Parts: sequence; structure tokens; C-alpha cells
Amino acid sequence: MVNDLLAGVIAGPQPVSRGLYIADIVEKLEALSPAEAAAKLGRMADVRAVAALDRPEFASAPDVLEMLPFPRAVQLVSQMAEDRAADVLAEMDEDTADRFLAALAPDVRTSLSSLLAWPEDSAGGMMTTEFVAAPSYASVGEVLRLIRTVERSRETVYSVFLVGREGRLEATISLRRLIAAEPDDLALDLGRGRDPVAVAPETDRKEVADLIRRHDLLALPVVDRNRCPIGIVTVDDVLDALVEEHTEGVQKFGGVEAFDKPYLETGFLAMIRKRAGWLSVLFLSEMLTASAMQHFEDELARAVVLTLFIPLIMSSGGNSGSQATSLIIRALAVGQVRLRDWWRVALRELPAGMVLGAILGTVGFVRIAAWQALGFYDYGSHWVLIATTVSAGLVGIVTFGSLAGSMLPFLLQKLGFDPASASAPFVATLVDVTGLVIYFTIALAILSGTLL
Amino acid sequence: MVNDLLAGVIAGPQPVSRGLYIADIVEKLEALSPAEAAAKLGRMADVRAVAALDRPEFASAPDVLEMLPFPRAVQLVSQMAEDRAADVLAEMDEDTADRFLAALAPDVRTSLSSLLAWPEDSAGGMMTTEFVAAPSYASVGEVLRLIRTVERSRETVYSVFLVGREGRLEATISLRRLIAAEPDDLALDLGRGRDPVAVAPETDRKEVADLIRRHDLLALPVVDRNRCPIGIVTVDDVLDALVEEHTEGVQKFGGVEAFDKPYLETGFLAMIRKRAGWLSVLFLSEMLTASAMQHFEDELARAVVLTLFIPLIMSSGGNSGSQATSLIIRALAVGQVRLRDWWRVALRELPAGMVLGAILGTVGFVRIAAWQALGFYDYGSHWVLIATTVSAGLVGIVTFGSLAGSMLPFLLQKLGFDPASASAPFVATLVDVTGLVIYFTIALAILSGTLL
Repeated sequence: MVNDLLAGVIAGPQPVSRGLYIADIVEKLEALSPAEAAAKLGRMADVRAVAALDRPEFASAPDVLEMLPFPRAVQLVSQMAEDRAADVLAEMDEDTADRFLAALAPDVRTSLSSLLAWPEDSAGGMMTTEFVAAPSYASVGEVLRLIRTVERSRETVYSVFLVGREGRLEATISLRRLIAAEPDDLALDLGRGRDPVAVAPETDRKEVADLIRRHDLLALPVVDRNRCPIGIVTVDDVLDALVEEHTEGVQKFGGVEAFDKPYLETGFLAMIRKRAGWLSVLFLSEMLTASAMQHFEDELARAVVLTLFIPLIMSSGGNSGSQATSLIIRALAVGQVRLRDWWRVALRELPAGMVLGAILGTVGFVRIAAWQALGFYDYGSHWVLIATTVSAGLVGIVTFGSLAGSMLPFLLQKLGFDPASASAPFVATLVDVTGLVIYFTIALAILSGTLL
Repeated sequence: MVNDLLAGVIAGPQPVSRGLYIADIVEKLEALSPAEAAAKLGRMADVRAVAALDRPEFASAPDVLEMLPFPRAVQLVSQMAEDRAADVLAEMDEDTADRFLAALAPDVRTSLSSLLAWPEDSAGGMMTTEFVAAPSYASVGEVLRLIRTVERSRETVYSVFLVGREGRLEATISLRRLIAAEPDDLALDLGRGRDPVAVAPETDRKEVADLIRRHDLLALPVVDRNRCPIGIVTVDDVLDALVEEHTEGVQKFGGVEAFDKPYLETGFLAMIRKRAGWLSVLFLSEMLTASAMQHFEDELARAVVLTLFIPLIMSSGGNSGSQATSLIIRALAVGQVRLRDWWRVALRELPAGMVLGAILGTVGFVRIAAWQALGFYDYGSHWVLIATTVSAGLVGIVTFGSLAGSMLPFLLQKLGFDPASASAPFVATLVDVTGLVIYFTIALAILSGTLL
């Protein structure tokens, strides 16, 4: 209730008339077909249409722009924030993007082309070239005057770069420190004694987000090999990148290749492709379970009762593995655990798996004993041995699952893969095959001479 | 290589002497035992110790503070950012926190107590009371002078609140617009025509992050029932909250209760508790597979060959379900799909599951035929019927898995639970039991009169 009352919203830096908020306009446009959205966008004032196009949530922007009359579309693109314009052009097919680039003013074309050269998930792909740079000999008052002049055309003015004689980045000064200082002070003095955080354009999106978060920055300079600033990544781009990373992370953990577009907008065939690949690989690996079972065929025929517990035991291994993997993937991602800590993790997971296995094993034993005692099911005269087999199997498989699930992300990272590729289905498959072998081996050891 | 050269970093707003960066100091302190860290922190200058304590990455800060001489600890806490100080006190046991509160200056005590009243993952728990507010009749020049005076003591000065006669929030003005305006302008004029975004203190952390991201804000006002500002949430707090949400999301999807502390710092017993709960619930549910198998006991005894494919078929259902769930959890979380879209999703997942099932079914059929033809294994004279059963079973189970996996998050949301509680193990368990029934029912239909 209180929330509803307070849900009034403010628009971004762009002024918006007639009381509609940009984020809401974008939501409405996204719900339309590209042709309808283009018709609607075509009737908007430039400032408003550009504000909408500037939002990364406007996923169909490339399609919508292609449906607009070309001169109008070019006019809009030329007014968009450069980092966003580059992202939108990157999503068009190459010919269309080239047509747009050719029609833009030379300076915009140069900036956009240089932004387009970097992969989307790198600092270069996230940055904008619209930053504020002042010479390192400028006074606080001079820098503030410069900010006032260029405010409208810059994505952020909260961080100002001070550059030396060869254009090298000497310091990053925050607007709050400029405001608090005396106008005659040397701006550079506010940044003395520290090296500014800066990244190369090829730096991964994840590392950019980590640095901004780690140092509580509002913006991060991107510099070339000579340490000359070529762009700036702002904190709002990082927020979007983090949410995208999260989506990819969950999809990967679910065993799906990351989707480029929202679920309902992804084509049916594209969706099948993203899912069928992993599903087939897992299926082929899982076929080893059939082979493992064939290997124990005689035992199966002699003691059909053993098969009753196969799904139970296998799934427990998969579940404990999936738990361990999810814990380690995140611990690695946020830097709580390093590659070299693998043995510390193993030394925790081994006893943890044994305790968890013992808990499940006890429950399993009680279940079989109860069913036998209450007459729900007759496991035969050897029911104690069967219950022991199941319990021991659970301890073995949950221990193996926890250990394998926790070590897999380390192994993947060591081999140069993303540790987040260790999906729940991947771990389950890994544990299933081994789990069967563990179960039947224990069964042979315990039941040999009686049932087997 | 380039990255290493550029890895120089800047510290946060706090000035840092002697060339060490706060984030690095925090990392070093975190690697020590609380006692060692307290000894080290005790030897630091106040400004530096406070800057370190202010970082949320300094997870052992509560323990470290308790080990410092009490007067010194109180002195440090009183200088910390209020939102962080409240978080740190919230993690101490109640008696210790009360002792700290009692020793603090009355105004700090009042702010901290009011912050402590809100749950950690609400807007009230994330906010700080250190915001800048100016009367709504102030000129741009007056507001800028105010900012200059209070800059040192405020968490952010990039958003200024303009409050009316009864203390109600009338507008939020960004520093960049103030800088660009004329000193004699009315500050309120810069914010005319829009309602400021604001939230109630009980608003969930996730909603706060969504609003800040949606509207590209640097800070979000928190207001009481009368719309009077009581705090401010800044974008850096949201970054931290997003990363934490992500960790919780992955852990939940892996079937683990969210961890409060980093993996290696979580006690062994606490870790077992967080994992054993879900594992046992899943285990008890999965016991239904044993019951389902008992139900088909006669069929199993007559056609042991059917058991060979149980793990393969079950895992395929679990994998396709886990894929569908991960897609829908994220689509719901980022708002690409709403509750009312459930039937659109179902209409996509039904054919998608059938196609994916047909792909796996074909592979499965070929596998059985190949093994039979190549003499790797003899499935008996009815091998075609067995292969057909397995293929049809795969189609049925993968379809059911995709459908169940995609609908479960909707169902959970509808029932008022977090849709992200639909973990991969949860879906797998759900699909396993039904999958067995589907498999055996199909087997009965196809093999009745021959094998069964």
C-alpha cells in the first residue's frame, strides 16, 4: 500500500514532457511489434525518442530503427549516447550498420566505429567516448567552468580526467571534491598521491564491474597502451552488465547456452538450438549409465529389489553435487575462494559429504525398516542387508557428489574454462554414472553370498 | 600484460596516505584472524581504519571491532558511514551492539537505532541518513553552498533533496543540473514537472535495485508515510546488493539455503544445516520413486532390460526441466515475463519439449539399434519394441520436464513464494517420480503381450 503511494518516478537526465516516464515509454514500446513501435516512435519528439532508444531495456531498438524512414533513423542515432548507439548498431546486420555509419557525421562515425571494434562484453564495448577531460594544470574553477559548458553532451560529469602533456591520464577527480575545494586550487592537487584506477579496453565486463564495486567508483576510465583516456564506463552500465551476467549465470547453471534476447522474443528454432546442444551432450554422457547397468545385468536380474533404489540414490548424489557446485561457483566468482584454495575446499567437502550422506543413509535405513515392519513392502529375509547396502551407497554417493561437485569448478577454471560452466545437469550426469558403479560395488561387497 | 600495467588503483572518497589502497588493506585484514586484524587496525590512523571498516567486503569487521579496546572501537564506529555502521552492529550479538549504542553520542545513537530497526535486505536496512536536504525555496547558488559545507559528512552529494514546508520531499535534484544552472535560479525549477522516485523503508532490496537501474539513478530517496525523506540508498550499495542477490540466486537454484558468510568462513555445522534441510526434503520426496518402482515390480522382474534405461530417461527429464526453470526464473526476475504470461510460456514449452524429446528419442533409438546390430549388447528379439518404448518415453518425459520446469516458477510466484526457490534439484525430483510413471505406462502400452 505504502509502496503504491510512493511509486511516483522520476525520469533520467533527459527532460521529459507530458508526465510520462522514459522507463514506462520503453516498456510500452517493447510490448508492441517493431512496426507498431516504429510508428509510435516516429511520432515522438526527438528528445523523447532518443531518451527511449538510449535505454538498454529497449531490446527491439535495432529492429525499430530499421523500420523508421532512414533519414529520421540516422538523425536519432546521431543524438543517442555513443555507447548505446554502438550497442544498437552491433546488433544490426553488418550491411545495415554500415549504411548507418556512412550516413552519420564524420566525428560521430569515428567514435562509433572505434567503439564497435571492441567486443560487447569488454570495457571497450561498454564505454562511451563522451567523457570530460581537462589539462592537468587547470585550476578547480577552470575545471568547473568546463563542466558547466559541456554538461549537456557528456554521459557523466561526476568524474573528470586530468591529462598531462602527452595526453596521459594523470588523475581522476570527482565532482564532489571539486565542489568542496577552493576555485584557485590546482585540480591536480585533489588527486595527488594516488594512481587512478584505469583499465584497458579489452578488459572483461566482469572485471570492470568488480573494480567499480571494489573501489566504489561512479565511473572508470578506459585508457590505451600509452595511458591516454579513450573512454569511460559509468556505474549504470555496470548495473546493467551485472544483471546480464546474472542471467547468463543462472542460464548456464541450468544447462542452457545464454540467450541473447528476452525469452518470449527468442525465436523457436534459436531456443531449441540453445537447449538441444547441451541436452544432447548430457544425454550421450548419460548413456554410460546404461552401459554401467548392463555391466551389472546379472546382479540386477538376481536382485530386482536393488533397482527400486536406483533413482533415489542417483538423485541424492546429483542433488548434493549441485549444492556443492553452486556454492563454489559463487565463491570463486566473488573471490572468496581462489584456485589455490582447492584443497581447503576438498578438506571441507569430504567430511561434509560424509555427514550429509550419513543423514540421508539413516533416513533411508529407517524407511526400509519401517516399510518392512509395517508390512507396506516385503524386501525379503535379507532386508537388513539391503537396507545396509542402500545406506552405505548413500554415504558413498553423497560424499562423491559433494567432492566432485565442488572440485569441478576448480578443474574448469584450471583448464581455462569459465567455472560457471559447471551446470547442475553437468554435475548430475557426472555423479550418476559413478554413483551407479559405487552402488553396485557396495551391493556386491555386502550381498555377495546371500542375494548376489 | 596491458592489464597489469594499468592495474594502479585509486581509493574511495577517503584520502589514503602512503600509497596503499583501501580495498587492498581490507583484503589483507580479511586474510588475518580477527585478533591479528584487530592488532593491525589498532595501529592505523583513524581515517584509514574507518575507511577500511566502511567497506562491506570487510566481513569480519564485527569480530575485529569486538577485539579492539572498547573506547577505540566506539570512536571508530562513530566515524563510520551510518548505513555500514548499522550493518556491522546488526551482526554483533545483541548485548554487544547495545553496549556500543549506549557509548555513542546521542545523535549517532538515534540514527543508528532507527537504521537497525529495518531488516537488512530492505530499503531501510540499506539506506544511510547522511543525505543533503535543502528547503524548496533555495536558489541554485544556496544549494551549492550548502553542499560545499556538508560535503565531508555526507555519503553522497550527487543527489539533493528539496523539502517543502512540512518536510515533505518535493524534488530530487542532481548535482550536474545544479552545476549547469544559473546561481540565481530556483533549484526547484530544475525538478519541476516530475514526481521524484522514492520508496518506503520496507521496500525489498531487489525492488530498490530495479528502480535505480530502471531510472539510471545515482541515489534513491527513502521516505516515511508522510513523504518526508528519512534516508538515501546510493548506487554503490545497490551494486553490493545485486552481487549478494546473485549469490543467493545461484545458491538457491543449486538447492542450498543462502549462506550469510563467505564459504570458507561458514562454520562446518552451519554449512551442514544449510544443506541438510533441502537435501532431506528432496530425499523424502524422491522416496516416491521407490514406491513408484515397487508398483511396477512385476514388470521390472519380467523385463529387467527396462531398468537399464531408467537413469538415462530420468536424467533427461531432470535436465530439460532444469533448463526450462532457469530460463523462466530469470525471465520473471528481470520482468521479461509476467505471471499472466504463463500460458504463452506453456504454449512455447510444450512444442519445445516435444522437439527436444524427439531429438533425444531419435538418438536413443539409434543407440539401441546400433548396439544390437554391432553385437555390443543383445536386447532380445523384441529390441525394436524396447527401442520404441525408450524413444517414446524420452519424448513424454522431456515434454513433461520442460512443461513442469517452466510452470513451477509461475506456480511458486502465484502461491506467494519466491519463484527462484524452484531449484534444479527440486525440478529434477518433481520430474523423476512422474517420469518413472510415464516410462512404465508407455512400456505397458507398447510391450504388453510381448515382454510384459
